[in-house]
Amino acid sequence: MKKKVAIVGATGYSGIELIALLANHPKVSIRTITSNSHQGERISDIYPGLRNVLDIKLVATKMSNIKECDIVFFATPNGIASKYAVELLNTNKKIIDLAADFRLNDIKQWDKHYNIKHPCPKLLEKAIYGLPELNREKIKKTNLLANPGCYPTATLLAIAPLLIENAIKTDDIVVDAKSGISGAGRGFALNKLFCETSENLAAYKIAGHRHLPEIQQEMVKLNSHNRLSLTFVPHLIPMKRGILVTIYAKLKQKKQKIDLQKLYETRYNGEFFVDIMPQGIYPQTKSVTNSNICRISINKISARKIVIVAVIDNLIKGAAGQAIQNMNIMCGFDEKLSLTETPVII
Amino acid sequence: MKKKVAIVGATGYSGIELIALLANHPKVSIRTITSNSHQGERISDIYPGLRNVLDIKLVATKMSNIKECDIVFFATPNGIASKYAVELLNTNKKIIDLAADFRLNDIKQWDKHYNIKHPCPKLLEKAIYGLPELNREKIKKTNLLANPGCYPTATLLAIAPLLIENAIKTDDIVVDAKSGISGAGRGFALNKLFCETSENLAAYKIAGHRHLPEIQQEMVKLNSHNRLSLTFVPHLIPMKRGILVTIYAKLKQKKQKIDLQKLYETRYNGEFFVDIMPQGIYPQTKSVTNSNICRISINKISARKIVIVAVIDNLIKGAAGQAIQNMNIMCGFDEKLSLTETPVII
Amino acid sequence: MKKKVAIVGATGYSGIELIALLANHPKVSIRTITSNSHQGERISDIYPGLRNVLDIKLVATKMSNIKECDIVFFATPNGIASKYAVELLNTNKKIIDLAADFRLNDIKQWDKHYNIKHPCPKLLEKAIYGLPELNREKIKKTNLLANPGCYPTATLLAIAPLLIENAIKTDDIVVDAKSGISGAGRGFALNKLFCETSENLAAYKIAGHRHLPEIQQEMVKLNSHNRLSLTFVPHLIPMKRGILVTIYAKLKQKKQKIDLQKLYETRYNGEFFVDIMPQGIYPQTKSVTNSNICRISINKISARKIVIVAVIDNLIKGAAGQAIQNMNIMCGFDEKLSLTETPVII
Amino acid sequence: MKKKVAIVGATGYSGIELIALLANHPKVSIRTITSNSHQGERISDIYPGLRNVLDIKLVATKMSNIKECDIVFFATPNGIASKYAVELLNTNKKIIDLAADFRLNDIKQWDKHYNIKHPCPKLLEKAIYGLPELNREKIKKTNLLANPGCYPTATLLAIAPLLIENAIKTDDIVVDAKSGISGAGRGFALNKLFCETSENLAAYKIAGHRHLPEIQQEMVKLNSHNRLSLTFVPHLIPMKRGILVTIYAKLKQKKQKIDLQKLYETRYNGEFFVDIMPQGIYPQTKSVTNSNICRISINKISARKIVIVAVIDNLIKGAAGQAIQNMNIMCGFDEKLSLTETPVII
Repeated sequence: MKKKVAIVGATGYSGIELIALLANHPKVSIRTITSNSHQGERISDIYPGLRNVLDIKLVATKMSNIKECDIVFFATPNGIASKYAVELLNTNKKIIDLAADFRLNDIKQWDKHYNIKHPCPKLLEKAIYGLPELNREKIKKTNLLANPGCYPTATLLAIAPLLIENAIKTDDIVVDAKSGISGAGRGFALNKLFCETSENLAAYKIAGHRHLPEIQQEMVKLNSHNRLSLTFVPHLIPMKRGILVTIYAKLKQKKQKIDLQKLYETRYNGEFFVDIMPQGIYPQTKSVTNSNICRISINKISARKIVIVAVIDNLIKGAAGQAIQNMNIMCGFDEKLSLTETPVII
Repeated sequence: MKKKVAIVGATGYSGIELIALLANHPKVSIRTITSNSHQGERISDIYPGLRNVLDIKLVATKMSNIKECDIVFFATPNGIASKYAVELLNTNKKIIDLAADFRLNDIKQWDKHYNIKHPCPKLLEKAIYGLPELNREKIKKTNLLANPGCYPTATLLAIAPLLIENAIKTDDIVVDAKSGISGAGRGFALNKLFCETSENLAAYKIAGHRHLPEIQQEMVKLNSHNRLSLTFVPHLIPMKRGILVTIYAKLKQKKQKIDLQKLYETRYNGEFFVDIMPQGIYPQTKSVTNSNICRISINKISARKIVIVAVIDNLIKGAAGQAIQNMNIMCGFDEKLSLTETPVII
Repeated sequence: MKKKVAIVGATGYSGIELIALLANHPKVSIRTITSNSHQGERISDIYPGLRNVLDIKLVATKMSNIKECDIVFFATPNGIASKYAVELLNTNKKIIDLAADFRLNDIKQWDKHYNIKHPCPKLLEKAIYGLPELNREKIKKTNLLANPGCYPTATLLAIAPLLIENAIKTDDIVVDAKSGISGAGRGFALNKLFCETSENLAAYKIAGHRHLPEIQQEMVKLNSHNRLSLTFVPHLIPMKRGILVTIYAKLKQKKQKIDLQKLYETRYNGEFFVDIMPQGIYPQTKSVTNSNICRISINKISARKIVIVAVIDNLIKGAAGQAIQNMNIMCGFDEKLSLTETPVII
Repeated sequence: MKKKVAIVGATGYSGIELIALLANHPKVSIRTITSNSHQGERISDIYPGLRNVLDIKLVATKMSNIKECDIVFFATPNGIASKYAVELLNTNKKIIDLAADFRLNDIKQWDKHYNIKHPCPKLLEKAIYGLPELNREKIKKTNLLANPGCYPTATLLAIAPLLIENAIKTDDIVVDAKSGISGAGRGFALNKLFCETSENLAAYKIAGHRHLPEIQQEMVKLNSHNRLSLTFVPHLIPMKRGILVTIYAKLKQKKQKIDLQKLYETRYNGEFFVDIMPQGIYPQTKSVTNSNICRISINKISARKIVIVAVIDNLIKGAAGQAIQNMNIMCGFDEKLSLTETPVII
């Protein structure tokens, strides 16, 4: 018998991708989709691509609509999942939050970066950070999953082998990150209008993006020996989907001889969703469009300087796909279920 | 045991879409992919999105490389499939030509519109025009299938119910067609360069596009009672994929009272790949991206004037997807195999 | 001494183009720019491309801010200019309305198509429709100028020579119109978001766009002998700026021999802003980007069928540029002042 | 009397921008435009936006066609200008090369990075590097001007104040550069096709772009005290025009207290084409589209770490516009002539 799934906040871009991917999942069925702004409407009237795929109606976001489901995805703004978490956990539901409510372990960090009084700060320590390639065992056992941000997913997968190996100087890492527009969601903002965004390129939040403390927190878990100092500058790219991060780091002197290609291939050996590119071939975002794959290129450009490039689809591996990967692990399903579509090639 | 498939001309846009779709087909396996310009290269080195999906090498386009397969797709320029057709048919292979070699039944029309001496004009009468929704029974029995052009697919599906019903004046039909850039293929041409095409819009071949005789030929088959006169003007749209046709026609006086919505819904009842939109809702190309679906809106704007809008993904229902739909029919498979992916929503 | 100009509604796309063009006008100076949503802000903080070009602040839209100027442009939503018109005309100001307040001569038509009680219906008959190539003499003498809509501008320039010549059947004209996204303005709407619009194409308002009565009204002025029946279907194209209209019409039997190229070249002889393309060369929107030019191609595709293609930049010849052209005429300036920039070529 | 200008290689993107800008220059007239692939054609037939702006025909690239002009722009591939330079200089012509022939002062560097035997290596030392804001006095006196590359222009303007002030550690500078597609020119390449480039993002030439030695050479001229080590990674952005560079550097310990905003504003005080953004406001490429302006933002993100963001239009300040700025200086004209157009705002 299929598990029943609720998607809270189903009309945003992450929500709709959850629906598109889960529509063909063999072990779960979408029972409930919620949206406060569109309740009563059919999801396939809002996104006509879903006609004959999923034609159910959206209901209000409230506990009575959610609680009959076994698994609850929150594809909502920050501050929603944490309102429902305690009650849902008490009734043994599985929660997967695609927002930031449970990503930071330290309530002080939360208070500093998010302007919301956290309703259940104690859960911050219990939630598991859902990056399966680095954290799979813990994910298996949790009912409260914090799905990573899109930038952190690409950045952490790209740099983890070096941190675990203790191979680089950690006090001077530069992450130059580039994201398509869908990363900013479906809400209205001038810089998401076609005429403002097409044929345009800009850096933003140079002084501090909310994903920075999240990345730093997870980096420290991977390498706690050294002081960490990270520069993170995101850029908005005139395309719909895709993230590319370019990471600049320096090898420790004693690690200059390390075989980086081998280090990466070994670390991610057997990982279906991580692909290490051959030397000299750099990944492009198009090669992962609509797929849950992260492709990584590791380059040594001088005796100690290295440049890592990683790409993901921000809506799949950076959001809905990874959430389903986490669900598969939490439920004991094959991790790849409903995530094996070939990338859109053209 | 799986049928063996060859894809001739595998690196073009139609070829690569065939690969992406067939990679997960449960009843066939891709045995041979050919390309004269890229022979010896791995297809996944050319399209890195195919890494770990299909990593075989391209071979030269020649009979010895093709003949071991049961089914041969030609995703080539015009004039290639017809060179191989006689020999392949003699050895009982199934041929599906995505080019125009077998679309026109009349060698005079071919000579007029294509600057190529046809190697086997007698086959023109035997080939079956592969529009399953209009021609399914004949497709079941053929080994030589002419896969329709992208514009004709959208146009014919959009207007067929009216022609079959003999409901419109056929001497004054206007088809204003719009296509994304991929319709022009992957060969080099100035008007496919990003900087020439982005933020640009143009009509082309007003004096006569090669798809016009193809559309006319099939229209006459649907309605041979009346003189047919069609105006067809294609336009190039700054997007990668998608076709939208806007068709302007007039009801015959005695057919003014016809229920058009019902006519269309009845005609396409049970057709998985044709979706008639509700009154007042117009289809957009995004709603069929990466899918084999055609969505159609039928609108009556005055007592006799009607406007039909239809959308397809030119690379799927307009090329590779329809070719696989035809293969499924020719082989007695479930017609939908490997064609049920949800459209890319964002 | 320079004339003082006010731009009411300066932060929308038409308003900002007025500023960009007028910034270098030798005979006027921008004295007042208004915006209710952005009052107090510097225009160059909103559009940083204007830094060091025009750094004045926006003020509230109210009479006391406007009345000191000689010329008032309304680049506002419908229903604003008509609130100020009577008082401004009484003090001898020149009004150029880029919205629809004064485009329709008949209050019944206004009431039917616009959901706004018109504050000064008597002015509807006095306002002059500002299409200089067809209406120059009246423009010279008016103080109340209705700047044409973008679709009407392209459509009327494209078909006027045929109507004036009484060369076509007027009861069956089809206008298939395509516009970039900026035509919909800067206000929020889902279908203006980058992720909803990029790689997408759709028809809209098939049942009746507000520009249809405007086009019909002006067509009748050009040819009142015959019943007029116009089909007008607009489409949204994934590009920022540019309009292309494709017009399908039929020659009257007795006019079959007419030299269409000559008809058009003669009609627009001496018109700096209208360019008739040579036979067989079709205009593309990019060729008029950022310029006030309309390029037109006239094609005879059979004994009686003709196809006309015309392109304009919707924000320039379709809005701000034509408004300035009208101002130049109303003020007795050289009609081309500040409108001679070369189109943006790439 | 106007100076006569020749544009060699007039049909490429830099060439065509030279034409568009110079068409309205009050002190020069375009006498000769050359193209080997298009000789005999009218430039306005290739770029219809130039109809009625410049309708002369292209002639072959050979000395007899060029030598009658006073000023010769080479908007050609590398290796052309250097073939003509000696003879043109001998007859006292002014040469402005938009390619790389004269950018490197050291023939060894040239040999290492360009696969062309340099015809006149001695001229490498005489040519002046044409970055007016850093090099104006030398430009005034030269007849042989090397117009900087697009990436170097943005990078050098962005970092020059820090180097001149000796404020940063020069052994660890990271330049993450992003360019629109037009930077790669108009020649055919797969990664310039719309369908390959739209909705895609990639890094390229991580191991070493030809602009790196050019940037390093000029940086050393600005600060020769220290060892210089630069990491430079370019990225291809799915837009037509625009470059944005994000530069990561560290202040020297003793320079931590420096007022960076003031340093930049002072350095570029009076420079019409350099705009220092206010603190906290980051430039976007759209704000300089079609203009010769470079906008720079200087940000201190920790005690010693700084991030500089600079934008230019790669075809204007990064190519044709700067070439004309240099011509104006070399000829003693007002430096801004024909370069004061307002950026395209939308």
